[in-house]
Amino acid sequence: MRAAILAVGTELLSVDRVDSHSLRLAARLERHGVALVRKAVVADDEEEIAAEVVAALARVDLLIVTGGLGPTADDLTREGCARALGLRLVEDAAVWEAIGRRFASFGRTPSENNRRQALVPEGAAVLANARGTAPGLRLDRGGRTLFLLPGVPHELEELVERELEPWLVARSSGGGTERRTLRVAMRPESEVDRMLEPAYREFGRESITVLASPGEVRVRFAAHGPAPERGARLEAMDRRLRGLLGDAVFGAGEEETLEAVVGALLAARGWTLATAESCTGGLVAERLTRVPGSSGWFPGGVVAYSNSVKTDLAGVDPELFAAHGAVSEQVARALAEGVRRRFGADLGIGITGIAGPGGGSEEKPVGTVHLALAAADGTRHRALRLPGDRERVRTMAAQAALEMVRRGLLETGAGEAA
Amino acid sequence: MRAAILAVGTELLSVDRVDSHSLRLAARLERHGVALVRKAVVADDEEEIAAEVVAALARVDLLIVTGGLGPTADDLTREGCARALGLRLVEDAAVWEAIGRRFASFGRTPSENNRRQALVPEGAAVLANARGTAPGLRLDRGGRTLFLLPGVPHELEELVERELEPWLVARSSGGGTERRTLRVAMRPESEVDRMLEPAYREFGRESITVLASPGEVRVRFAAHGPAPERGARLEAMDRRLRGLLGDAVFGAGEEETLEAVVGALLAARGWTLATAESCTGGLVAERLTRVPGSSGWFPGGVVAYSNSVKTDLAGVDPELFAAHGAVSEQVARALAEGVRRRFGADLGIGITGIAGPGGGSEEKPVGTVHLALAAADGTRHRALRLPGDRERVRTMAAQAALEMVRRGLLETGAGEAA
Repeated sequence: MRAAILAVGTELLSVDRVDSHSLRLAARLERHGVALVRKAVVADDEEEIAAEVVAALARVDLLIVTGGLGPTADDLTREGCARALGLRLVEDAAVWEAIGRRFASFGRTPSENNRRQALVPEGAAVLANARGTAPGLRLDRGGRTLFLLPGVPHELEELVERELEPWLVARSSGGGTERRTLRVAMRPESEVDRMLEPAYREFGRESITVLASPGEVRVRFAAHGPAPERGARLEAMDRRLRGLLGDAVFGAGEEETLEAVVGALLAARGWTLATAESCTGGLVAERLTRVPGSSGWFPGGVVAYSNSVKTDLAGVDPELFAAHGAVSEQVARALAEGVRRRFGADLGIGITGIAGPGGGSEEKPVGTVHLALAAADGTRHRALRLPGDRERVRTMAAQAALEMVRRGLLETGAGEAA
Repeated sequence: MRAAILAVGTELLSVDRVDSHSLRLAARLERHGVALVRKAVVADDEEEIAAEVVAALARVDLLIVTGGLGPTADDLTREGCARALGLRLVEDAAVWEAIGRRFASFGRTPSENNRRQALVPEGAAVLANARGTAPGLRLDRGGRTLFLLPGVPHELEELVERELEPWLVARSSGGGTERRTLRVAMRPESEVDRMLEPAYREFGRESITVLASPGEVRVRFAAHGPAPERGARLEAMDRRLRGLLGDAVFGAGEEETLEAVVGALLAARGWTLATAESCTGGLVAERLTRVPGSSGWFPGGVVAYSNSVKTDLAGVDPELFAAHGAVSEQVARALAEGVRRRFGADLGIGITGIAGPGGGSEEKPVGTVHLALAAADGTRHRALRLPGDRERVRTMAAQAALEMVRRGLLETGAGEAA
């Protein structure tokens, strides 16, 4: 089954509102194996509503429309849908009575406006709304189904639970969808894509999605069908994808962030990490301390923005600045080693770079970043040339530093003492 | 002029993603008096894209499509749009060359996948993308215009600014809406609301919106009509609202962040600020260094997570921990004064608190935060009890610290030497 969602309301087209109702509906559909293929938002305009209903019903089996069922003149969902299907609107005596009873229970009487809420396209099933005056409506036409539901969140919620959910259960093939996400840091999207090619062939291209954000690629995959087979398939996909990606995968799911994984590796080994940051300005420390319990493996760090702070607090030999510049392999190494010593930590990470917009040169353009990781067995170094603006360079440099710590922890024998 | 927006991407139909790009586009359209009548999201599916393009172009003069221009097999916006308009896709030699140059600048060569990004519907204008490999495209057909823009935010941003904006300016009827935002830190929404009451009466309730987020209230206001009158009204509203809110207003617009304002105040005075952070873990330093040119007034800071680091790097007397606890007024003062001295800065800010989830007690529950600001004329202190989880406590504590620095700078006579 294929579905679409339409949210009606001029306010949903304003510069500061997004349609968030549709997320709950999307979750319901997915659980029952219904493919959501389009979402739309249209203004409170009869023609726009009608046009979208016609367009959507040409492509899907189920269309859920929310909003525009209120009593005011700009609530036009009933009219738009009736027009799209070529149906007349007729007053439903039972609905009008229910509206009257609802008002009476608050000691009021409905206004003439409310009468519009009793209009029903001929042949529609009325879905009683216990939490408001606007009933929901269901229309079945030529094997396709249209649900009209109120936009008020708690009214929508109730009608979804009481009317849409059982309707979906009755039609569910038993085949819902379950998803997982694997996360990869600091690899180009195209490289991850190439690594996954065998899996695309085995499991189908459409079941695996690759999503890139600065410094991270998320591999989302889905399995469909009845619960037991679906779970087994998802497990098989998980194993295969991890096999293809190897230890490029740092974690799974939204909870398992790179900083949380670094923290868990440190905690497992009983190690500590100290940070000396120049261009990232505290971003690495800030990410590490987002992790609850980080005080167990993160004593602290230095944000060494000026050269004198690099010397005073992280022990960088001032001669290095003159000889190599503050943004250099030598200074990155000195920062990492200095902060490791200073904080008595097992690992020290040093980050120096040019985030921009100023400070770049031909030899060292904006985006030049040097990272160093100091450990008992020596100091590793990495040079990066990052694209983008100040924010992006900082974000990617912090991500690269955390990934460098993670790889350092994987490469250093787990039994090795610091 | 009537417009529609289409966001392409299966991931945008998932249960945890909303289409937020469209908000910026909506703001641009609004400013030029273009009516946005529909927004849609469709899956990465050639047929779905084509169907929506056909449906939208039947109803609007301008359709903006974002996303689906990447190099992978599921990027199908080019194909869908070409199909909708009955156009062939042809490889554009200049685009392919530009992609090659871009890869070369990072020392890489494009893969065969990237070749797809050089495909262009015949007759389309190519809109160069300085920040990525996918160019934007513009198609004019029978008086209607279709823009295809990349979905990556900073690429989209640039193409909107350089291509869409001038196109809109050239066609603008002059009757748009203009909005401004004033920003207030660390005040309750209800207090701001009360302060604004006279303005609601003068300018109309619907023209002023109050939006609260953790530690900040945004006051958004709008004026409509032709540019000169609209501008004058907006100016009048701005003056009146600032008059009512006084120096609670720290800035205007999304660019004027609290950290940028603090930086500008420091720069104007030729002062420097150093940070000693415990519970915020580097968040204040990170926010300060987001500001371009921050090296002029921010020498650096210490993330003093463990008590020994508080002592070694910020000079906190270890007896204070035993006498008052690490989260106390005394330790906050010692951090601020210690870091000010240590970095030779004019101002020092010290932050210590319990972000949770662990570490709270009856006397000092999660959310207990002490802030201190050290200056030549003495040290101020503030105690806070913040609601919410770890992330929220950290965010609000950092916001409160920056607001404390701002107020400190306003209160200290501008002529006073440090």
